[in-house]
Amino acid sequence: MEISRRDALTGTAAVAAAPLLVSAPARAAAPAADKQAPSFYRYKVGDIEVTVVSDGRYTFPLEDNFILNAKKTEVSAALEKAFVPRDTMTIYFAPLVINTGGKLVVIDTGLGPVMKVNSKGANGLFAENMAAAGFDPKAVDMVVISHFHTDHVNGLLAADGNPAFPNAEVLVPATEWKFWMDDGEMSRAPAGRMQGLFKSNRAIFEAGLKRKVTPYEWGKEVAPGLLAVETIGHTPGHTSYVLSSGSGKVFIQSDVTNNPCLFAAHPEWHAYFDQDGDVAEATRRRVYDMLVAEKLQVQGFHYPFPGLGNIEKDGSGYRVVPAPWNPSI
Amino acid sequence: MEISRRDALTGTAAVAAAPLLVSAPARAAAPAADKQAPSFYRYKVGDIEVTVVSDGRYTFPLEDNFILNAKKTEVSAALEKAFVPRDTMTIYFAPLVINTGGKLVVIDTGLGPVMKVNSKGANGLFAENMAAAGFDPKAVDMVVISHFHTDHVNGLLAADGNPAFPNAEVLVPATEWKFWMDDGEMSRAPAGRMQGLFKSNRAIFEAGLKRKVTPYEWGKEVAPGLLAVETIGHTPGHTSYVLSSGSGKVFIQSDVTNNPCLFAAHPEWHAYFDQDGDVAEATRRRVYDMLVAEKLQVQGFHYPFPGLGNIEKDGSGYRVVPAPWNPSI
Repeated sequence: MEISRRDALTGTAAVAAAPLLVSAPARAAAPAADKQAPSFYRYKVGDIEVTVVSDGRYTFPLEDNFILNAKKTEVSAALEKAFVPRDTMTIYFAPLVINTGGKLVVIDTGLGPVMKVNSKGANGLFAENMAAAGFDPKAVDMVVISHFHTDHVNGLLAADGNPAFPNAEVLVPATEWKFWMDDGEMSRAPAGRMQGLFKSNRAIFEAGLKRKVTPYEWGKEVAPGLLAVETIGHTPGHTSYVLSSGSGKVFIQSDVTNNPCLFAAHPEWHAYFDQDGDVAEATRRRVYDMLVAEKLQVQGFHYPFPGLGNIEKDGSGYRVVPAPWNPSI
Repeated sequence: MEISRRDALTGTAAVAAAPLLVSAPARAAAPAADKQAPSFYRYKVGDIEVTVVSDGRYTFPLEDNFILNAKKTEVSAALEKAFVPRDTMTIYFAPLVINTGGKLVVIDTGLGPVMKVNSKGANGLFAENMAAAGFDPKAVDMVVISHFHTDHVNGLLAADGNPAFPNAEVLVPATEWKFWMDDGEMSRAPAGRMQGLFKSNRAIFEAGLKRKVTPYEWGKEVAPGLLAVETIGHTPGHTSYVLSSGSGKVFIQSDVTNNPCLFAAHPEWHAYFDQDGDVAEATRRRVYDMLVAEKLQVQGFHYPFPGLGNIEKDGSGYRVVPAPWNPSI
């Protein structure tokens, strides 16, 4: 229909308005897409290109024993303050693919193809999102592992049990390797979760990778521009990284915190999966104080995607200020 | 190489480590992708599927007159507090595509194809990202316009000057339509930016759309589940929306604030593009107080992508808490 200027000016147009398309042929309603965008995100650190690749999320009921030194009601209050459901916890996972110009480097590998099936596509999405980002796993030169928890190492193997990155050197923290491959540590580990982790790690690194790994030491570059940094507590060999190129620099924190809505806000909280809670907390405070003092950007494996941000102090804890998404690079 | 267990246990393995692939054929280094992920993001509001589609960003030097009632040094300090460059301002743009089940509805249209060329792909990306999200512009049933600034209406026309959504009814706020189509208002408008806006709007709505629009009134549903709400000040007919379905509800704020790192933190600041700064500020405080009180999620056209979040009080202003990205829906 045509709106005459006089109608528009007198404000009667809207009242009189009829749909434009009354005589147009009926079209079927567009179906809902019902599928998220491929969740990857790129940014530059100097000449190095970083691609954050989501492995998905895991949501579970909040239990009393999720945080060892806080009451469930306190945890629920923190979740509510972050505007997320108060009775469930969600953990996000975000491995990285780093193109140094000379090397294609994967850092951590997600929950892997079995969990993709078991979670009905909620997680284990690294391989799929990595393909959407245009990466061929055969082109990966190095896989750098921060620590030996399942959400970081399971993706080392493809669904058939063979290496998911067949041409890649697999680099592991020397201290972490020593711990998980030590039969004495394994025999002394508590039954249940820790015994399961030992078994799972043996299956991946012995049966799967045939122990073909390169242990690395802290304080050294493990790939061009990628410095390994000791951040123990979460595991005995837990490692973070400083990625730098030119004037660009970002701290890759691995699991210094899990979801920051709980553990940046409450660095004093000890999750059950921190193998040494006191040491993990000391590491967390040391790292976050450094990030605040140096205004250093941080990339968080367990931050909500895409997980790049800065840290500011917030009362007795910290707050992540997400970096604004850059729609074109 | 094989790491013997004894090497690993004694910690000498890393020192002795040689690259795994010394004998593998040399591969060419993977080229950098140098291209951002298609920037769209989906979520559900009840049965309605929302797709946020980035139109890109616009970065420009911060000038003294960007905010009329604050000094440049104060603005720089606020930018620095948000961990973004202190001497430039970045504006983000995020139109929406909403699938109500029956209707495919676009809200606002971005800077359009001319700016895509002029900005060298920094903005004007709505059409491209909409295609990446799987939408055919011919399938759009309705285009709802919040107000008549170029970043909301330019994308109504394709590069050839014809309607970009050829089968869509175009719905415009009745008050906004009246203002911009009023020859008296046009003749009284200050030279420069405002005169330019009038001319540009006349070109779009008269030459381009042949005045084929449907004005709508506040307080009514303009599309299934989409209630138009008066939020004037930024322009005389500036409109926001409440989208609701079942128990789901989100406030689509349009330009109640521009980039929240400045205007949520400082609701008292008047940007030059708020046509009535005092009214815009009153609207901003009223809306944000409501969002805080009702814990209502908000979708911001000028928030960094994807622009969904909640609002909390922060001193004399407000802070946006971005909703965590859901990697699978």
